[in-house]
Amino acid sequence: MRQIGVGIVGFGTVGAGVVEGLQRNRGKLAERLGIDIALRRVADLDITTSRGVEIDASILTTDLTQVVGAPDIDIVVELIGGSGIARKVVRDALEAGQSVVTANKKLLAEHGAELFSLAEDRGIDLYFGASVGGGIPIIRTIREALSGNRVESILGILNGTCNYILTRMESAGLSFEDALAEAQQQGYAEADPTLDVDGFDTLHKAAILAALAYGFTPDLSSLSAIGIRGVVEAEDIRYAKELGYRIKLLGIIRGVDGEVEVRVAPTLVPKSSMLGSVDGVFNAALVKCDLADTTLYYGRGAGRLPTASTVIGDIADVAFNIVHEAPLKVIVPKSRKPVRLKPSAEVMSRHYLRISIKDEIGTMAKLTGVLAAHNVSIGSVMQKTTCQVSGSAVPVIILTHLARQADVEASLVEIGRLEIVDRPPVRLGIE
Amino acid sequence: MRQIGVGIVGFGTVGAGVVEGLQRNRGKLAERLGIDIALRRVADLDITTSRGVEIDASILTTDLTQVVGAPDIDIVVELIGGSGIARKVVRDALEAGQSVVTANKKLLAEHGAELFSLAEDRGIDLYFGASVGGGIPIIRTIREALSGNRVESILGILNGTCNYILTRMESAGLSFEDALAEAQQQGYAEADPTLDVDGFDTLHKAAILAALAYGFTPDLSSLSAIGIRGVVEAEDIRYAKELGYRIKLLGIIRGVDGEVEVRVAPTLVPKSSMLGSVDGVFNAALVKCDLADTTLYYGRGAGRLPTASTVIGDIADVAFNIVHEAPLKVIVPKSRKPVRLKPSAEVMSRHYLRISIKDEIGTMAKLTGVLAAHNVSIGSVMQKTTCQVSGSAVPVIILTHLARQADVEASLVEIGRLEIVDRPPVRLGIE
Repeated sequence: MRQIGVGIVGFGTVGAGVVEGLQRNRGKLAERLGIDIALRRVADLDITTSRGVEIDASILTTDLTQVVGAPDIDIVVELIGGSGIARKVVRDALEAGQSVVTANKKLLAEHGAELFSLAEDRGIDLYFGASVGGGIPIIRTIREALSGNRVESILGILNGTCNYILTRMESAGLSFEDALAEAQQQGYAEADPTLDVDGFDTLHKAAILAALAYGFTPDLSSLSAIGIRGVVEAEDIRYAKELGYRIKLLGIIRGVDGEVEVRVAPTLVPKSSMLGSVDGVFNAALVKCDLADTTLYYGRGAGRLPTASTVIGDIADVAFNIVHEAPLKVIVPKSRKPVRLKPSAEVMSRHYLRISIKDEIGTMAKLTGVLAAHNVSIGSVMQKTTCQVSGSAVPVIILTHLARQADVEASLVEIGRLEIVDRPPVRLGIE
Repeated sequence: MRQIGVGIVGFGTVGAGVVEGLQRNRGKLAERLGIDIALRRVADLDITTSRGVEIDASILTTDLTQVVGAPDIDIVVELIGGSGIARKVVRDALEAGQSVVTANKKLLAEHGAELFSLAEDRGIDLYFGASVGGGIPIIRTIREALSGNRVESILGILNGTCNYILTRMESAGLSFEDALAEAQQQGYAEADPTLDVDGFDTLHKAAILAALAYGFTPDLSSLSAIGIRGVVEAEDIRYAKELGYRIKLLGIIRGVDGEVEVRVAPTLVPKSSMLGSVDGVFNAALVKCDLADTTLYYGRGAGRLPTASTVIGDIADVAFNIVHEAPLKVIVPKSRKPVRLKPSAEVMSRHYLRISIKDEIGTMAKLTGVLAAHNVSIGSVMQKTTCQVSGSAVPVIILTHLARQADVEASLVEIGRLEIVDRPPVRLGIE
């Protein structure tokens, strides 16, 4: 049986999971593939701290060149993360003729075009299934299973930390801060949660999905990422719930009339929908295509073994491609015509508005007048009654019909200036 | 660009969808694959009735040999259905050296072992993604994405007709008969709905999934298929709902201690769970694996274009394999050791019991006594109070803890004989 040598760079959480999975299921993989996948080396700066997995000490090394460019390593698995050393590791491996499997979303979101082009020039595989969705095979599905389709939209709950926080804010009535602290205690959030809670992690993943679906690499700096910190308040979660919705941080990718919308925003989704049913650290992506129509993929978006599952699935594919000299099965599509990114302001969607007004006669007429003047049509209104006297502040919740985001924002600026409004209005999208 | 010739046998609903999809997205496929997939022929006995798709009349033929064994056809797409002519078409094509794509669950459930073995001997691909789950890439996912995993269980809502009927029985309070009539009106159920509502369609699909996950072909006649007709009553749906559950027809495949459970049964699932959220004609499969943990795949389990999406995804793969001379990437695993099928009687699960009793003092003590004597432990009890006098019949709903099915059934036989019980008790599983 042909043997394929694998070397891992980065012996962190996912690295240890891949080591465990490759060792545990080596026989099973050989049975399915007809190829023996041999883990030959694991490189990291720290090779003494236990990772909770048994490993032959002789395959551990601090010397990168024992993996990258090493003649007995056919597949380099990059699990360092970030876009510094990782970029050099991937480049050097590809240039040395080694196939690469990576789980690094930041690297691909920032330098994907360069790296995929290098891989294609060299006729070598660069697989990246675990960069989006952890244990969910969403990348593979879009690349292969749906290859006969045109993708219309992808709505993804792509960050487990945010979904855990939003779930706990709703189910336990926690504030954002308390839910974040709980997530940190549970190991679901980093000490510095910025990348997660401010939407950047989701944005990296959305950019990769957009590249797959529409064949272009969006410039990250031109994309809008709204996170949940300082944006989603406990009361919005309560009002959304009363109206039959849940708030989820979504990566939204949608092709409309030759333009592509790529953005991240906390968004209301119906409670009883499939996306609305995704709780806790779980992730999901809802994909709409011209042939398959609506499909959804759900699972653990992170974690040692789930992420390892996808990395190992990639390793198995790449090993097969090497043995059969059939690389580049799925080329990351390069758009033949330029793709225009749709500015957020132009996006059409339904909107949730929360406006805190003084409870006086005529205030509703003023609000609705401003919205109408900006072509924003109202779907439903919920005014929270209070036990207090006329003149005290009460929230008004408005769900709009489809409206242009710029129109809604302009109307909110004007509403914010009204005397009857006592603090800045809140706007969230609805899908 | 290399061209690969495709011939379709069977110009029915799915056949027309594949024609439409291949024509519409030919350019897109070429861009992604670097291969031009050319639809060269469509064979059917009836080539005059319009299928609602534009097609060059010159590629239509009533002559099977224009596809099977024809030198310009690289891939034969079998969309006849059934296990009669279809079996011959697939056999003949493989023997003529043509790769085959089929959506035929009955054929594979009954003759899969023979056909896969023939394909493997000839070194030719036999792809069958659309045989389970329509537009959901569940087969591909188990074969490829999860190839590094050991599958622990698969719970599948695999029949859209049944799921539509069960959904409407709950949401509109319809009887089975009315919901079936509605499904027939909507085109979601056949005039003779036996294959669907009595569970055989789900059983065929469960057998295919079991073959993929555990490498053996279960003998269909040894498997238990309980459908929904005459089994799931409107009142059970109501009681389940009150207890926070929905009833779904599940295909259940589960490996436990070297034995494999393969069965079909209407089953209670939590309303707020992902499976519980699958409504109408949609299908889903919840897969539990050792590395990926829980993942779920959701979409349209039938229909012209969704099924075509999966067939075309298979065609794309097979075309790539032909061009790169790399067939048999994913061999349907043949178990090295015999797999023991777990008899239904031995299956451990929680159970829902509905027992109609005379509302008298001491009846509950008698019931619980019988259950305890059979080692069936009670989780919760709901007795529906009535406005009627003592002595009238009332339903008692019991949810058990984990119990052996044989023990539960034995206790129900004994309970059925009690004087206080006025009709046969009902038992459903809970997952």
